[in-house]
Amino acid sequence: MSETQMPTARTRLVREADRAVYDREAVYRILDEGFLCHAGFVVDGQPFVIPTSYGRRDASLYIHGSAASRMLRQMQMPMNDGAPVCITVTLLDGLVLARSVFNHSMNYRSVVILGKATLVDDREEKLAALRILSEHILPGRWDDSRQPNERELKATSVLRVPIEEFSAKVRVGPPIDDEEDYAFPTWAGVVPLEMVAGKPIDDARLLPGQSVREYARDYTRKRQSK
Amino acid sequence: MSETQMPTARTRLVREADRAVYDREAVYRILDEGFLCHAGFVVDGQPFVIPTSYGRRDASLYIHGSAASRMLRQMQMPMNDGAPVCITVTLLDGLVLARSVFNHSMNYRSVVILGKATLVDDREEKLAALRILSEHILPGRWDDSRQPNERELKATSVLRVPIEEFSAKVRVGPPIDDEEDYAFPTWAGVVPLEMVAGKPIDDARLLPGQSVREYARDYTRKRQSK
Repeated sequence: MSETQMPTARTRLVREADRAVYDREAVYRILDEGFLCHAGFVVDGQPFVIPTSYGRRDASLYIHGSAASRMLRQMQMPMNDGAPVCITVTLLDGLVLARSVFNHSMNYRSVVILGKATLVDDREEKLAALRILSEHILPGRWDDSRQPNERELKATSVLRVPIEEFSAKVRVGPPIDDEEDYAFPTWAGVVPLEMVAGKPIDDARLLPGQSVREYARDYTRKRQSK
Repeated sequence: MSETQMPTARTRLVREADRAVYDREAVYRILDEGFLCHAGFVVDGQPFVIPTSYGRRDASLYIHGSAASRMLRQMQMPMNDGAPVCITVTLLDGLVLARSVFNHSMNYRSVVILGKATLVDDREEKLAALRILSEHILPGRWDDSRQPNERELKATSVLRVPIEEFSAKVRVGPPIDDEEDYAFPTWAGVVPLEMVAGKPIDDARLLPGQSVREYARDYTRKRQSK
């Protein structure tokens, strides 16, 4: 089941419209492979862009942080029922080497979400959102960890951003050169790029008998395609 | 030679001040290992965050794109000698698994630059900036490519963002748990993450005898430390 979102004037791609993706399931696949977003907000006309992790369930994206953080305080400004934010997720897949300098490019998948963030302040909802965040980043880890206590819950702010106004942009495949450039004598092609996990590093203070869990040993962001 | 930048009220880290880096050479090392930034700008009060590649030379960061792109048009609004922008570069180094959910974290290095972008419109300066961009992403590639012609130069906008008001944030090392949590029976440690290049993929229309260049075969972002 797939729903195609009509772009708004703010999310319609002006350039390279052939790279545009407005399909909700395709956007979810990108969001579910990533876990780091760049969150944009505005203070006194100045934009700020801050990297932070996120989780997704259904049409909700959650971010969290210290209740004292500038980003989270700005994003939930109560006086105007949520400040406008932009959440961008980018997966980089490769360098695209064309014959001409001009046609060099990158293969990537990115999602831009515009919206207003709202504070998740109900205790149970906040706990559920933190679990979604944790499971999004590292499935299985939540149950293996010491659960949040009341002090920690209070010290943490969770914001929800609705996945309503969004667009995605995807480039795949080989370089596309101008026809006459195919005669230019150079190498052309793609250098694939991928985020990979290395061998887990044991903490120095592990209790005896605690060995690395499977979810940490075989960590990958690749998801089964449906 | 290293210069320490005094943070401004806008770049001073409010939280986790122990992770703050204001040293210019350390910031350059992060900027030189990365090549993808997230650029923030504001349109009618709405922040936009767009991924784009960049290059650096000295205290200048360059981004480029189609002269028709929304981002580049917005960022160089001539009526107010440059719109405020934010350029953020994030290198993700690992997942940090603590005993408590609360102390989970990530290892990363990020730089935030605030400033105003100015259009590079002198022809020679624009060409030099495009070369800086190209060499930043893939050293050696420029000379192996068909050079930009006048039409392509006109179709490309290059913006310069001064690296003047900036901060960086770095987290390295193992999880830090609350003292009483070290008795909690679970695995803890770090899952290292790294962006790695795969085997280059030949374009289907390569001329006979064109084999992959060394810079594409041995691609890495790791730089020699000085």
